[in-house]
Amino acid sequence: MTVKRPDSPKRRVTSTDVAALANVSQSAVSRVFAHHPSVSDKMRRAVLEAARTLGYRPNAIARSLITQRSRIIGVAMAYLDNQFYPEVLQSLSRALQAYGYQILLFTADETGAADPMLEQVLSYQVDALLLASVSLSSHIAEECELAGIPVIMFNRTSSTPGAASVTGDNFAGGRQVAEFLVAGGHQRFAYIAGAAESSTNRDREAGFCAGLAALGMAQPMRVPGQYDWQSAQAGTRLLLGRPTRPDAIFAASDLMAIACLEVARTEFGLSVPHDLSIVGFDDVGVARWPSYQLTSFAQPVEAMVSAAVTLILERLESLAAPPRPIVIPGRLIVRQTTRHPAQGLVVEDGERVWRTPSETTEGP
Amino acid sequence: MTVKRPDSPKRRVTSTDVAALANVSQSAVSRVFAHHPSVSDKMRRAVLEAARTLGYRPNAIARSLITQRSRIIGVAMAYLDNQFYPEVLQSLSRALQAYGYQILLFTADETGAADPMLEQVLSYQVDALLLASVSLSSHIAEECELAGIPVIMFNRTSSTPGAASVTGDNFAGGRQVAEFLVAGGHQRFAYIAGAAESSTNRDREAGFCAGLAALGMAQPMRVPGQYDWQSAQAGTRLLLGRPTRPDAIFAASDLMAIACLEVARTEFGLSVPHDLSIVGFDDVGVARWPSYQLTSFAQPVEAMVSAAVTLILERLESLAAPPRPIVIPGRLIVRQTTRHPAQGLVVEDGERVWRTPSETTEGP
Repeated sequence: MTVKRPDSPKRRVTSTDVAALANVSQSAVSRVFAHHPSVSDKMRRAVLEAARTLGYRPNAIARSLITQRSRIIGVAMAYLDNQFYPEVLQSLSRALQAYGYQILLFTADETGAADPMLEQVLSYQVDALLLASVSLSSHIAEECELAGIPVIMFNRTSSTPGAASVTGDNFAGGRQVAEFLVAGGHQRFAYIAGAAESSTNRDREAGFCAGLAALGMAQPMRVPGQYDWQSAQAGTRLLLGRPTRPDAIFAASDLMAIACLEVARTEFGLSVPHDLSIVGFDDVGVARWPSYQLTSFAQPVEAMVSAAVTLILERLESLAAPPRPIVIPGRLIVRQTTRHPAQGLVVEDGERVWRTPSETTEGP
Repeated sequence: MTVKRPDSPKRRVTSTDVAALANVSQSAVSRVFAHHPSVSDKMRRAVLEAARTLGYRPNAIARSLITQRSRIIGVAMAYLDNQFYPEVLQSLSRALQAYGYQILLFTADETGAADPMLEQVLSYQVDALLLASVSLSSHIAEECELAGIPVIMFNRTSSTPGAASVTGDNFAGGRQVAEFLVAGGHQRFAYIAGAAESSTNRDREAGFCAGLAALGMAQPMRVPGQYDWQSAQAGTRLLLGRPTRPDAIFAASDLMAIACLEVARTEFGLSVPHDLSIVGFDDVGVARWPSYQLTSFAQPVEAMVSAAVTLILERLESLAAPPRPIVIPGRLIVRQTTRHPAQGLVVEDGERVWRTPSETTEGP
């Protein structure tokens, strides 16, 4: 029944072939593969045996046209060289696979604009679209929603109020870094920025600057970093080449913080943290390696992915569930690249963490 | 014309809708979107304008049933925490996107067995399947081929002779590491193994052992590493805790080599390379970071990906093109974690590389 000639495209075994061999109706075959409760054991056995004999596989693509569900989630992602995103991708893929969904991957370049790939994405009839580290014009986001494709932002927020997104608490994280560094006695602060147009950078910087201002400190020196190694190294050279160099640098990602640390130690001969404290963001695996032991604000990847999967499944199960921004709290993991404050260090889950000791800075 | 009710699945605009608005036949609409040369400019303009008005997008899924091509390449991958694979994924995705293909991603766990996910993969009617770091039973591989789905192994070889694969030159790499370490005057060699069942580990170890034997050296001490950080650290502790510790360790991946380096320096207080030389494999980005400056055998990701894409496209264009194993040569990049031989170091493309000075070791 199966035609398998190597010089022509494959001819698939269909449910009609299976029905013929099992001597049942084609709709009975469909019900068996849809795990319909009305199917008798005898019917199921006959159909499955016929299917095995013929090498039949249900065609998810064809079924998608009927059910309007492809079981495919489009994921647009950039920055795969930053350890944070491979961790996200692996976690997301496993979580979605557990629910029977696969990821159709679209890699964007670092300018982070997803619009050019959108036509491609939409032509595959993905059930939902998750944008990690890339942004979407409000026009295209609206088109997706109108086409019935929920859009979920990951590690980015949308300018559309109430749009579905999952982020870490970037503003609070930036602020806690400021409070931690001030409590440690630092006085000349600097910030190495991520991609200027990204919401993560915007919020981390805003939190950092707000935290410093609330404690009466001057605003930080600032250099661009673009979330990449070379830019962060160049920015660090600018900062450390100044006559009055900073004594504390907050980099908006671990990759940039490590790039900074390497320049400080190998090019300027500085001792970290004795001469200079450095803080990163993300707490990727490399931050824990002994040669770095980087103090970093941790974004809990598993919790963020779990929230994203929940948002996706809610939207697909019932379009009445409102899209909403979900913010996952993080925590500042204190390691060896920073001078420690006298108070506020606690141990949680085997990690040394800093919690702002006094809440009075936040007002009544 | 477009029904967009938030409480029901989306009803897509079809080519029939566009044809009606443009007052042409549905097959004319198809020809326009297939860029058929027979379409007049006037026809194209009318169809595209109607399509824009209605928000029509060609349905790649429906088209795939007709053309038997989905333009989707299935990629099964594990080890996303090893920098090598995110680099591969990013490079592969960009290369395939340039040819109009998208990646459907299947993440496997590290046991590396792809069989359980195969039914899922096949139900999506992928045009080809690339297996990176996972293995496939010969039975399943044969089923794919019979179903007309070419299977390409990446960084793994298949037990089936002549099967399509792209690998670095693992055997030659292991052998060059042996020759380099012997030339550097080392005498007590050790090997930290990767995943035991992987072809990469098998070939790297075989090359390393053959290289040592050919130069009259004893076979290396050996510990398992499983391509993961914790196992490599545990293996290093075993090696360095011995009364007669090795003076040169070859780890089958950079991740494991760095894990080894950290243990040697921070737990045993050893000076690298003065007390101990360490060599890795892959030359991922982290190997170049100043705190590591790891000597490593480089696998050229871009060249390997390019070869894989070529294999995929050849198979899809003409099923008569024979599948074959492609081996991409690499080179040993010499940095700061190894004692240097007196001869053989050359500079290529700004990198210090070691080339075996004499070919007489290889025989006539």
